[in-house]
Order: sequence, then structure tokens, then C-alpha cells
Amino acid sequence: MVNRQWRLLASPVGPVKESDFEWREEPAPEPGENQLLVRNIYLSLDPAMRGWMRDVPSYLPPVRLGDVMRGTTLGVVEQSRHPDFTAGDLVRGVLGWQEYALSDGSGLSRESRHPAIPLTAYMAVFGHIGLTAYVGVLDIGKPQAGETLVVTAAAGAVGSLAGQIGKIHGCRVVGIAGSDEKCRWLTAELGFDAAINYRTENVLESLRRHCPNGIDIDFENVGGGMLDAILTLINKHARIVLCGLISQYNATAPVPGPYNFTNVLVRRSRIEGFIVVDHWGRAPAAMADLGRWLAEGRLRYRVDVVEGLENTPRALDRLFDGSNQGKLVVKIGEEPAL
Amino acid sequence: MVNRQWRLLASPVGPVKESDFEWREEPAPEPGENQLLVRNIYLSLDPAMRGWMRDVPSYLPPVRLGDVMRGTTLGVVEQSRHPDFTAGDLVRGVLGWQEYALSDGSGLSRESRHPAIPLTAYMAVFGHIGLTAYVGVLDIGKPQAGETLVVTAAAGAVGSLAGQIGKIHGCRVVGIAGSDEKCRWLTAELGFDAAINYRTENVLESLRRHCPNGIDIDFENVGGGMLDAILTLINKHARIVLCGLISQYNATAPVPGPYNFTNVLVRRSRIEGFIVVDHWGRAPAAMADLGRWLAEGRLRYRVDVVEGLENTPRALDRLFDGSNQGKLVVKIGEEPAL
Repeated sequence: MVNRQWRLLASPVGPVKESDFEWREEPAPEPGENQLLVRNIYLSLDPAMRGWMRDVPSYLPPVRLGDVMRGTTLGVVEQSRHPDFTAGDLVRGVLGWQEYALSDGSGLSRESRHPAIPLTAYMAVFGHIGLTAYVGVLDIGKPQAGETLVVTAAAGAVGSLAGQIGKIHGCRVVGIAGSDEKCRWLTAELGFDAAINYRTENVLESLRRHCPNGIDIDFENVGGGMLDAILTLINKHARIVLCGLISQYNATAPVPGPYNFTNVLVRRSRIEGFIVVDHWGRAPAAMADLGRWLAEGRLRYRVDVVEGLENTPRALDRLFDGSNQGKLVVKIGEEPAL
Repeated sequence: MVNRQWRLLASPVGPVKESDFEWREEPAPEPGENQLLVRNIYLSLDPAMRGWMRDVPSYLPPVRLGDVMRGTTLGVVEQSRHPDFTAGDLVRGVLGWQEYALSDGSGLSRESRHPAIPLTAYMAVFGHIGLTAYVGVLDIGKPQAGETLVVTAAAGAVGSLAGQIGKIHGCRVVGIAGSDEKCRWLTAELGFDAAINYRTENVLESLRRHCPNGIDIDFENVGGGMLDAILTLINKHARIVLCGLISQYNATAPVPGPYNFTNVLVRRSRIEGFIVVDHWGRAPAAMADLGRWLAEGRLRYRVDVVEGLENTPRALDRLFDGSNQGKLVVKIGEEPAL
């Protein structure tokens, strides 16, 4: 059994290139005692991956050069010599950019499969994406009905859920995205009150028009000029939920913080960074709510599937050039029959 | 009776100049029904005044050109036709850069005078200065014993109290100030664990040395490069208590936010701006605690008194060039006998 993998070869400078990775084919490992072998089906591509490739200490240690690149996957247990897992189990873990992964069970969760839930939804809604949106909007943003929520990278995996969760909680929701098609999707299908195409509109002017009562919550995925425009219009006691700063992940020189930083002071606002890894304890509540909202038709999602592990490095760049819409995943292998 | 005043003549560009104000001598007003006349004794000089002179909406409306410049004062009621005030009462209010002020009592508080408390302490500890330090450290910073607190502009009115409140709550406290004499005061007299002279030391290197366990709380009064150095060393879940950004109040061009802004995200930190005007409800608790700590000798303060209302504009600049130490006040008139 051959295991195909992408290993990190070099710490990328600027946008990620395929040559920063090495394609490796080697025999799939055999599980030892208390180990199991997982066949990965879907690999989640996330902007945070760019940070993991940097050789600086962060909330997770950097991926070492030569190691299989880190990534969250959904897979099926192929062989198990671990008491808690059985062949055929659906599992989620951080098993990397590879077809087969050995695990000792740590950080691995068994997922119950339901015929009504497509496996892609386990990546796009349930799991780290949904929990990020849920915790960010509700626990960090603390929305009140009637408040205005702005979401950047609103057509992305987390942003699209965050905006809808804001709507469910009675907010006016304005999204910022990178194409008319994305904006149409946000307003026509996801129920956003307005959407701004940052490539063709003056973001500050459009925000002014769409946020007549100012901005109370910013679900921030981007940073840079977009955050500056938002800080211009924040209300007293606004909450800036700092989920990502994708505009600067590929930067090769120091990037200044927001120019309107003084507004954080004079408008007594709060900028709060958060990372989903600290919030697993909220997963049961989040998954129950997300599932209910999905079932009630109040929450929609979109999955952008890239076929084939071999296309992973090139696909990752789609998160940064704005060409993906919804949750970007790589399909590594066939879904098991129900 | 002549009333001497400073009126705002022009919105200053860069550092405040005396020519931005107009000295006016006019007859003191007579209180009408439900009015009172206050003779100001001390005027508090605060960095926030620089913002009030800017012609942009902020947490208080800008001072209009031609109006008496805004400022917090401690004074004595000279004449009263108001039911709640009697001639001789000690009062605190926002009565401006002038000798006599008419008031309808709104925003005016009667202070009980105690022979053991010098009137300057009403400006330096009790009132907005003490409340700012108290709320900032305790309510926004939420210190835990053993945590490391860094205070910028640590020899200033608020900073010097903030650091001591941190010590009282069991923190390791490191101050940043602008002279060896100030640093000596912080460590030798106020009990700071360490102090850094930002004019002669590399702040980042010194912080690294004095904060071996990283930084948990930053009581930020300055911004700019100092904040950048601090953000480099913040721990997971750090709190940046944004009290002031004095390094940029005189700026004539847009100032970038902190370059290490991404650390707010990856270290899941919180930057929270606050302004004392939102926290008057905490004043009773704050004043009781501050008074007790003073009485117990656990809290010290220093007052930097400028004699004479006529010297106010020039004295204000001392907040920005770093030449003041402790609470800067202008003595407008004689203290009433006890």
C-alpha cells in the first residue's frame, strides 16, 4: 500500500509555491500496538496553514522542514490496534497532507456518521470551521439584536457562517468579499443585508452607506486597509473579533497595524484575538446549534472541492488570491459507502 | 471681580503653542437662580486635552474655537443660588482654564474635605486620575497574582498609580519612563520591580531581561514603538489596557498601528480601549480602596504644581516632552483655609 504525501521542503517566502513542498511516495506504515492507520478522505485547506510554515514560534510549533505538512483531515480507520477505534470508524484529526496516517489516537475524534449529512459538511460546518465562526461571533463578539456586524472575507468558510450566525442573532450583517458573484451569494442565498465587493468599490464609502448606524461588531479575517475602513466607523464599545489577518500572511516585510488604532481608544472598543484550539469545550453546544440551524434551513454552506492530493499546494493559494468560495477542501480519496 | 481665562483660538497643529490660545480678562459672571459661581484652585493638565482641541468628533465634543479651554478643576463655591451648594463648598467639575466659572451644578460634585488630605491629592489620586488607574488595572486588566504588568509613561499621574495597584494585587511590575530619576523613583519609592529608561535603553532588550516570564498585562499610555516592543513579548491571553496613545497625539500625519499586531491574534490577546467617563459608577469602590492604600502607606503619589493660570499653555507641553513627573496641575488660586 503506497502512501502519497506532501512534505514541507522550504519555509515559503511570499505566496506558497509548489516547489516549497516535496511529493513523496512511500509504503504506508503498519500500526503498532495502541496505534491505528487512517485513510484520509478530505483535507481542510485553511489560511492558518501559511503561519504554520513560518519558522517562528506561534500557537502551534512550526512544521519542521522535511515533515509531512500539517492539516486537518476527515478520514476512515483502515486498521486499528487501538482499543478506542475500529476499522471503518469515521475520524477527524490533524493528520496532514497525506493519504495514510498513523495515529496513537491523541487529538483524534470519532465522528458519528449520519446519512443526511454529506461528509464535506464535517469539514465545512461541523468541526473547526463551524466552531470558529460560532465562538467568534457569540463568545467574543457578543451580539445584541439590532447591532451591525461586518464580516470580512465573508464568502470564505468561516466568514460565510459567521455572517449567518449574526443574522440568526438579530444583527444587521454586511459582508465584504472579492467578486460580484460572491456578493450575490451572500445577499441572495445567505441572507446578508448587504455585501461589498472590495475589488470594485470604495470599501469605506460602501460601509458608510450600508452601516447607517455604525459598526458594533467586526468579524475580522483580513486586516490591512479593510480593517482601517471598519475602525473608522466603529461605534462606542465595538468588538473587533480578530479571527484572521489573511492580507498579511504572505508579507515579506513588517506590516503596520491599523492606522485608525486611536479609534480603539476613543471609542472604547475591544480587539480580541482568538484561536479555535482554545475553545474545544464549546464544541458540543456549537455543533448542536449549527446542526439545528442547518436542519431549519437557517444556515447554508458551500464547499469548494479540489480533486486529488497532488493538487494541494496549488489549491492553497486560492485562499490568498480570493478565487475560492466557501470551504476549500482537497478530496484525497473516495468516500466509504454508507 | 476679574475673571482670567484661556480660550482656544486655533486647533493646534503638532505640539500645542501658547499662540493657540487667547488670554482674556473679563468681569466674573454673577450666578442667576439655580446657578453658582466657583473659584477654581487647581486645574488638572491631562494628555487627553490634546484630543479635545482637535476638530473631530470624539468621546467628548471638540472645544469650539473661542470657547474657554476645557479642563477638570477643583474649586471652592464663591457664591451660590443653587439649592445643593453653599458658599465654601469644595467642588470638582469640568470648569475649564479659568479662575471663575459659572455652573448649574450639572457634572459638579461636592467633595468632603479632610485635614489629612492635601487638596492636590484630590487631583492626583482621588477623582479621574485614580479612577482611571483603578478601573484600567482591575476591571480591564484583570490581574492575577504572579502575572507581569508593564506600564508605559509609568512616572505619569495614571501610570504611577497603575503600577502600584498592580503591585498591591501581586503582580511583577515593570515601568517604562523617560529619565533615570523617574526610574529611580519608580523602583526605590513606588516599589516597581524594575524600570526602563526608554531614552537610553533598548526597550525590547530591557523588557526581555525584566520580564523573564513574558508580559501578561500592558497598561498602555504611549503607543508607537513602545507598544510594538511590548506586543513582541506578550503571553497567551495577554490584556493590553489601552488608556492613552500619547506618542501620537501631536502627530500631523496618519500614524500606523503596532507592527506586531498579528501577535494579538496568535497569542489570543485583547486590546481594550477605555475612558474614565464610562466608569463613574466604580468611583465609590475605587476611592475607598485608594484611600485605604494611601493610609496604609502602600500607595504614593507625586504632584507637579505649576504656579499661575497664565503658565497653563506652556505647562501642557510638559506632558508631551516628558518633563513632568507625577500629576501635573496648575495652581490657579489660593487654597481656602481649613
